[in-house]
Amino acid sequence: MADPRFFTVAGPFTLARLAEISGADLAPGADPASEYSDVASLDQAGPGQISFLDNRKYADSFLASKAGAAIVHPDMADKAPAGMALLLSKDPYRAYAKVAQAFYPVPAPQPWVAPSAFVDPTAKIGAGCRIEHGAVIGARAEIGQRCRIGANVVIGDGVVLGDDCIVGANSTVQFAMIGSRVNIYPGVRIGQDGFGFAMGPQGHLKVPQLGRVIIGDGVEVGANTTIDRGAGPDTIIGAGCMIDNLVQIGHNVQLGRGCVIVAQVGISGSTKLGDFAAAAGQAGIAGHLTIGPGARIAAQAGVAKNVGAGETVGGTPAVPQMEWLRQSALLSKMVRRKG
Amino acid sequence: MADPRFFTVAGPFTLARLAEISGADLAPGADPASEYSDVASLDQAGPGQISFLDNRKYADSFLASKAGAAIVHPDMADKAPAGMALLLSKDPYRAYAKVAQAFYPVPAPQPWVAPSAFVDPTAKIGAGCRIEHGAVIGARAEIGQRCRIGANVVIGDGVVLGDDCIVGANSTVQFAMIGSRVNIYPGVRIGQDGFGFAMGPQGHLKVPQLGRVIIGDGVEVGANTTIDRGAGPDTIIGAGCMIDNLVQIGHNVQLGRGCVIVAQVGISGSTKLGDFAAAAGQAGIAGHLTIGPGARIAAQAGVAKNVGAGETVGGTPAVPQMEWLRQSALLSKMVRRKG
Amino acid sequence: MADPRFFTVAGPFTLARLAEISGADLAPGADPASEYSDVASLDQAGPGQISFLDNRKYADSFLASKAGAAIVHPDMADKAPAGMALLLSKDPYRAYAKVAQAFYPVPAPQPWVAPSAFVDPTAKIGAGCRIEHGAVIGARAEIGQRCRIGANVVIGDGVVLGDDCIVGANSTVQFAMIGSRVNIYPGVRIGQDGFGFAMGPQGHLKVPQLGRVIIGDGVEVGANTTIDRGAGPDTIIGAGCMIDNLVQIGHNVQLGRGCVIVAQVGISGSTKLGDFAAAAGQAGIAGHLTIGPGARIAAQAGVAKNVGAGETVGGTPAVPQMEWLRQSALLSKMVRRKG
Repeated sequence: MADPRFFTVAGPFTLARLAEISGADLAPGADPASEYSDVASLDQAGPGQISFLDNRKYADSFLASKAGAAIVHPDMADKAPAGMALLLSKDPYRAYAKVAQAFYPVPAPQPWVAPSAFVDPTAKIGAGCRIEHGAVIGARAEIGQRCRIGANVVIGDGVVLGDDCIVGANSTVQFAMIGSRVNIYPGVRIGQDGFGFAMGPQGHLKVPQLGRVIIGDGVEVGANTTIDRGAGPDTIIGAGCMIDNLVQIGHNVQLGRGCVIVAQVGISGSTKLGDFAAAAGQAGIAGHLTIGPGARIAAQAGVAKNVGAGETVGGTPAVPQMEWLRQSALLSKMVRRKG
Repeated sequence: MADPRFFTVAGPFTLARLAEISGADLAPGADPASEYSDVASLDQAGPGQISFLDNRKYADSFLASKAGAAIVHPDMADKAPAGMALLLSKDPYRAYAKVAQAFYPVPAPQPWVAPSAFVDPTAKIGAGCRIEHGAVIGARAEIGQRCRIGANVVIGDGVVLGDDCIVGANSTVQFAMIGSRVNIYPGVRIGQDGFGFAMGPQGHLKVPQLGRVIIGDGVEVGANTTIDRGAGPDTIIGAGCMIDNLVQIGHNVQLGRGCVIVAQVGISGSTKLGDFAAAAGQAGIAGHLTIGPGARIAAQAGVAKNVGAGETVGGTPAVPQMEWLRQSALLSKMVRRKG
Repeated sequence: MADPRFFTVAGPFTLARLAEISGADLAPGADPASEYSDVASLDQAGPGQISFLDNRKYADSFLASKAGAAIVHPDMADKAPAGMALLLSKDPYRAYAKVAQAFYPVPAPQPWVAPSAFVDPTAKIGAGCRIEHGAVIGARAEIGQRCRIGANVVIGDGVVLGDDCIVGANSTVQFAMIGSRVNIYPGVRIGQDGFGFAMGPQGHLKVPQLGRVIIGDGVEVGANTTIDRGAGPDTIIGAGCMIDNLVQIGHNVQLGRGCVIVAQVGISGSTKLGDFAAAAGQAGIAGHLTIGPGARIAAQAGVAKNVGAGETVGGTPAVPQMEWLRQSALLSKMVRRKG
C-alpha cells in the first residue's frame, strides 16, 4: 500500500468498475460486486487489493499471491490461486496502469500564484494554473490552462506551454514551444544554446544558435535531462515521447512520435529518429544520422551509421543485434579455448 | 595550503595530537611535541606541514618532499627523507582523512531561516537548522536537528530528513525518508516518478509511481544525480553509500550498505546491489538483476546478468574481468598479426 | 529565419560589409553593394539572405539553394548556382559564425538587481551587471563588469568572476575563481566536493576537499555539467575550453587551453589534458592520466592509459583509432564467415 504520508488513495471500486476502467474482462466466477480498496504488488497484496502479472519472471509470485484480484493475460487464467478474482487482458500492464490511475488520480492543481513568484506583466497565464514559490515567468510567455509551474522554475521570454503541463521544480525552459499534457521533471534544461562553434587553433568561435525547441503533446522529459535548441532548424520532440533522466539531446535533433529514450542516452546534433524508435540506457547516437521508425538501439550501443526501420542494433560501433551477440559469444569462446 | 578565501584552518596541532586523532603511530625519533599548522600535498608541503603517501605511484614525490611530517605505511618508513617526522598507519589515506578533518572541521550551522525561504506552517524544523534564501519546505515535512538546507532547495510535502543533513543548493527532494548525516549535493533530484509506463502503438500510458525513496544514514549523493522513487516498492539506498555526480538510479533499486557508485553510472529499475558493491564510472546495470556483496563492476561495463558476491566484471556484455582483459588482448594481437 | 518571438535580427548588411566582418573575399562578379537581411540554411534561404556551405555532405543543398549569397570554400566557387553571390573563405564555418554574430549580436545586459535577489553586503558587483530574480550572491564574492547572473543562481562565499560572464539560471558556483567571458549554462554545478574518501569495511571516511576550481577566459560550460573542486590541488579549466552538457569533471583535473569536451564525457580525478585535446560524446577517461595536446578521444572510448600528443584513440580499453577500427572489422568478418 502506498504510504499515506505521500499518497491519497481513491476508491474503493467494485470489480465491475475496475473492468470498465481497464477495459479488461471479468473471468468466469469473478464477483462483479466485490470491492477493492487499493492496488498492490503480488507479494504484498491482500484480499481487499488488486494486483497484476505482466512479466512471467514473476509467475511464482502470482501462484503464491494472496491478492483478492489480479489482472492477467488470459493464458494465465487457469494458474490462478484458488479464490483470486481475475480480470483478463491481453495487455495486463496497460490495464493495470488504468486501474492504478483510478486509485491514485492526479488532482487538478489548486489555482494560485505564490507571492514570491515573479510573473512578467506581459505574460499570459491560463485559468487554473498554480505557480509555486520563487518561479519566474518571462516576458510574453504564454502558459495554458491548469499548468503547474514548480518552485524556482525559470521560464524564459516568449516560451509557450499548452494546457495541463507540469514543469518540475528548479527546471529551466527557454526558446521553446511546448504542447499540452507535457510533464517536465525537476532540473530539466530545455532550450539553451546547442554545442555549435567553429573550431580553430586561434580559439573556438561561437555560432549563434537561432532555432527553438518544439515539444509535442503528452511528452515526458526526465529529471536533469538537457535538450538544446536548434542551430537554425528547430530541435523537435514528437508527441508522446518518453524521455528518461540525464538524457542529452543535441541541437536540431528530431524525434518522431512515441520514441522511448532511456536514461543517460545521448543523441548528437541533427540526428532524426522515426516514430516509436527506442534507445536503451547509455546508448549514444552520432550526429546527422537517420534512425528508422520502430528501430531499437541496445543499451550502451554506439550508433555511427543509419539504422533502418524496425532494426535492432547493439555494440560499439553498432551492428545488427544478432551479429553483436555472435561477436560477443565468439570472443568468449576464443578466449576460453586459449585459457 | 588551502586558499584562505574559501577555507579556514584550525590548529596548530602537535604530532602527538595528530597521532591520537588519526590512530597512527609515532615513528621512532619523531618529536611528539613538534607542531604542524596545516596539511599539504607531498610536493607542496613545507617544514610546518603534514602530508601523506598512499599511492606508491607518488613515491618519488615522497623522497623529494620537504614536508615536516608525513603519514605513511610502515613499509615506507625507512625511505623517508632525513628530518621528516613520520606517523605510521596501515591505512595512511584514512589516517590522513582524520587529520585533514581536524585541520578543516565543518562548523555547526548558524541557525537561521532566510526571510525569502518558505517553510510551510505544518512542517517541523529541528533545532539548529539553517535554511537559506529561496528554499521551500512543504507541508508536513520533518527536518531533523542542525540540517543545512541550501538556497533554492525544494523539499516536497511529507519528506523526512534526520539530523545533521546537508541539502545542496538548487536540489529537490520529494517522496523521501532520509536518515541522518546525509549529504545531498547541489542539483540532486530525489523522488521524482520512475520511468514506468505501458508501451503501445496507440501511445504510452503512465503507470502511477507509488513508492518512496529511503536513504540510510551517512549517505552522500553527488551533484546532479537522479534517484527515482519506487513504482510500488521503495527505492532504497543503504547507510554509508557514496554516490558520485550524474548517476542515475532507477525505481525500486536497492543498494546495500557502503556501496560506491562512481560518476555517470546508471542502475536500471529493480536491480539490487549487496553491501559494499562498487560500480566504476559510466558502468550500466540492466534491470531486475542481483549484484552480490562486494562485487566490483569496471568502468563502462554493461552488466546484463547477475554478478556473484565478490566478483569483478568488465566489458559489454560484462564478463569476469580477467576474461574481458584476455578478450581485449586477443583482439589486439590478432589485429597486429594481420596488420 | 529565426523566430522573431525569440530573436531580434540586426542588419541589413551589404555584401562588402559582410566580407569585412567575416574576413572572407568577394568572389568575382559579386556585387559589394547588394544587401542581405538575414542568415539562413541553404535549404531555407531566399534571395535576400546569406547562407554557407561547410560540410560537403550538403553539396546538393548548395546546388539547389536559392540563397542570394553564400560563404563557401574557394574550391566550390565554380559550382555555385547562377546568380548566387559568393564570399570565399578557407574556413567557411568560422566566417559564417562571424556573419551570424553580426546579424544576431548579444546585447549588453540591462543593469539591474532584482528585488528578490540576495546580494551579500560584502560582495562586490561590477558596473553594468544584471542579477535576476532569486539569485543569491555570497559574502565576499566579486563579480566583474557586465555579468548576467541568471534567476535562482547560487554563488558561494568568496567566488570571483571576471567581466562579461553569463551564469545560467539555477546553476551553482562555489570555491571558484572564474575568468572573463565565461558562459555557464543553466543547471551547472561548479565547485562542490570531489569524490574523495578513504574506503573501508567499517565505512567510508570523507576526505576534506581543500582545492578550488579555476576557469580561464572564454570557457563555455554546458547545461547540467558538474565540475568538482580540487582535493588539495585545484581543478583547472584552461582558457577557451568548450564543454558540452552533462559532462563530469573530477577533482584535480586539468584541462589545457581550447579543449573540446562533448556531452556526457567523464574525466576522472587528477587527469590532465593538453591544449586543444578533444573527447567525443560519452567517452570516459580514467584518473591520474596524461592526455597529450591535440589528442582526440573517440565517442564512448574508455581511456585507461596515457595518450600521446596528437594521437587519436577509440574503443574500450582505448587503443589507437586505426587499430580499434581494424578490431571491429575483423570481428565482423569472423562472425559473418561463421554465420
